[in-house]
Amino acid sequence: MVRMPTDLETTSVDLEKTSVAVLGLGAMGQALAAALLRAGHPTTVWNRSAGKGDELVAQGAVRAATAGEAVRVAELVVVCVVDYDAAGTILESAADDLPGRVLVNLTSDTPERSRTTAAWANDRGIDYLDGAIMVPITMIGQPEALIFYSGPQAAYDKHAIALKALGGRPAYLGEDQGLAAVYDLALLDFFYGSITGMVHAFALAGADGVRATDLAPYLNTIAAILPPLAAGAARDIDAGSYPGEEANLGMMATAVDHILEWAEHRGLDVSTVRPIKDVYDKSVARGHAADSWTSTIEVVRGG
Amino acid sequence: MVRMPTDLETTSVDLEKTSVAVLGLGAMGQALAAALLRAGHPTTVWNRSAGKGDELVAQGAVRAATAGEAVRVAELVVVCVVDYDAAGTILESAADDLPGRVLVNLTSDTPERSRTTAAWANDRGIDYLDGAIMVPITMIGQPEALIFYSGPQAAYDKHAIALKALGGRPAYLGEDQGLAAVYDLALLDFFYGSITGMVHAFALAGADGVRATDLAPYLNTIAAILPPLAAGAARDIDAGSYPGEEANLGMMATAVDHILEWAEHRGLDVSTVRPIKDVYDKSVARGHAADSWTSTIEVVRGG
Ligand SMILES: NC(=O)c1ccc[n+]([C@@H]2O[C@H](COP(=O)([O-])OP(=O)(O)OC[C@H]3O[C@@H](n4cnc5c(N)ncnc54)[C@H](OP(=O)(O)O)[C@@H]3O)[C@@H](O)[C@H]2O)c1
Ligand SMILES: NC(=O)c1ccc[n+]([C@@H]2O[C@H](COP(=O)([O-])OP(=O)(O)OC[C@H]3O[C@@H](n4cnc5c(N)ncnc54)[C@H](OP(=O)(O)O)[C@@H]3O)[C@@H](O)[C@H]2O)c1
Repeated sequence: MVRMPTDLETTSVDLEKTSVAVLGLGAMGQALAAALLRAGHPTTVWNRSAGKGDELVAQGAVRAATAGEAVRVAELVVVCVVDYDAAGTILESAADDLPGRVLVNLTSDTPERSRTTAAWANDRGIDYLDGAIMVPITMIGQPEALIFYSGPQAAYDKHAIALKALGGRPAYLGEDQGLAAVYDLALLDFFYGSITGMVHAFALAGADGVRATDLAPYLNTIAAILPPLAAGAARDIDAGSYPGEEANLGMMATAVDHILEWAEHRGLDVSTVRPIKDVYDKSVARGHAADSWTSTIEVVRGG
Repeated sequence: MVRMPTDLETTSVDLEKTSVAVLGLGAMGQALAAALLRAGHPTTVWNRSAGKGDELVAQGAVRAATAGEAVRVAELVVVCVVDYDAAGTILESAADDLPGRVLVNLTSDTPERSRTTAAWANDRGIDYLDGAIMVPITMIGQPEALIFYSGPQAAYDKHAIALKALGGRPAYLGEDQGLAAVYDLALLDFFYGSITGMVHAFALAGADGVRATDLAPYLNTIAAILPPLAAGAARDIDAGSYPGEEANLGMMATAVDHILEWAEHRGLDVSTVRPIKDVYDKSVARGHAADSWTSTIEVVRGG
């Protein structure tokens, strides 16, 4: 099925490569289909609404009139839509054509919905992998693009080359189809906290006349300290001990207070900042003032 | 005052280098004093409570009995304590000895308190620079250590070499002493959002049995996408236009909903996550569903 392309073949569809159907042509579905086409995979595309995918067709994709029609000519089926309700509707409509193929659901949702979909697929003899894409569309197909997968190892191995065309850093997490969603939601949790802080930072600086483009380069310093901080925090959290010699929660609660005070002074919405202070205060009240900010995980756990 | 050290002198105190007093020996004050000592600056240290700074004395620092005594023998005075209330108390106690010296306040607080302290210093003939440290203590003295400064350019230039010993990436922002605090609070805003999301991510993955140390390496992928994302977001925000072709707010609000749903299912505290969804919902209600998440800045501005 897979044959090393010669120089001449790399940019055109290669009929001996795994054929793929891409269901859903939102921003991400289009990026996935484009990456498959660049890697020479015969690619069939379908989207609920018309008017999407013209560029893909120009690049060699075949447009199908129904999801079932797209699936019928494919060995590997990729679905990537807004959530599992949408994915479920699409998969039901193609249920007769899916058995015998490998279905990879790259839609983001909860572990429970991944497992429910896995059971649905299992009942129908469909090999089911659940996945989650951790990078923006501009990185799809690039070597650094992290995509999580979970489900039957054999199905993953069978299509490893096509999946690697979607993102150069695939991470296979295990047989339990819910695992990709567990990692996905955790990374998204970090992501949304970060970009919410980022928008608030731009608003706060802007209120004092600092342009966002003047502030942005300095945010890189903060982004650069997050990976070593995450590594240290993870060790603390797994050990259940929160040494605060380098930076203590009392000092940090004071810093959050300053952000709050100034943001309110400037009339900004502080609904996303105040709960951070409240969590810190709760951890301080539990005796963690001289410990690290990582002690706040005990408040988050609700224990 | 400043002379290039010979090889033999680099690690010991050099009496021809700027003499510095460090007031406050918390985690950060100690790191600052240690960096000055490593760079060969005669360094006098003082802290409110006894029992701190023994290692610094072993490294060549002179311990003063009062803040005034520390200031008297210094050309440059660095204060770094928990907030401006604490700094104010210390500076008042040394007010007779400060005139004629350059005072650098590296305590973090609001722009208003920086400006009030600047006026206080101005009334007493003290050259006053306000600063803010944007890195953890482990990076103090390193080439990548970003420290903001604002205040009279002449005072900054006079002590540029000693200040560079504290952090290799000093950023002088302008004459208005409040500027360092504006940038400081904005970066902290981003920082606290990020690490709050990080702790929540560890708790969420942990609830499904994933160890924090297994999750942490993947968080680096998210940290790595933040700088290009910040650059793009800044351009959108300065332009007041929020194109959503690559990732739209409707899709992202759905993703935050999945985090919320699963975190609640696992019994976690969601007080820091729910307001993110509320802000997204407000922006969607204003018609930004197909626009970028950067459109949420209009909700944050409270306009
Ligand atoms: N964009 C990113 O940067 C990014 C990054 C990582 C992960 N993701 C994930 O990728 C997935 C897709 O995101 P996206 O950015 O492509 O979203 P999008 O641009 O909003 O596209 C949404 C897709 O879902 C389809 N859809 C919605 N409701 C449907 C329904 N009831 N039945 C059938 N199709 C339906 C839409 O079809 P219509 O055209 O007919 O509306 C469209 O194809 C999401 O799970 C997201 O979390 C996205
Ligand atoms: N640690 C970091 O990673 C970090 C990073 C960037 C910026 N900063 C900033 O650096 C500053 C200091 O932080 P830190 O980590 O050194 O805090 P810390 O370890 O908690 O030390 C606090 C310092 O403030 C002094 N202090 C508190 N109340 C006082 C009062 N009323 N009068 C006199 N002194 C008082 C303490 O003296 P006692 O010993 O007598 O209590 C101690 O020297 C803060 O503004 C912080 O935002 C810290």
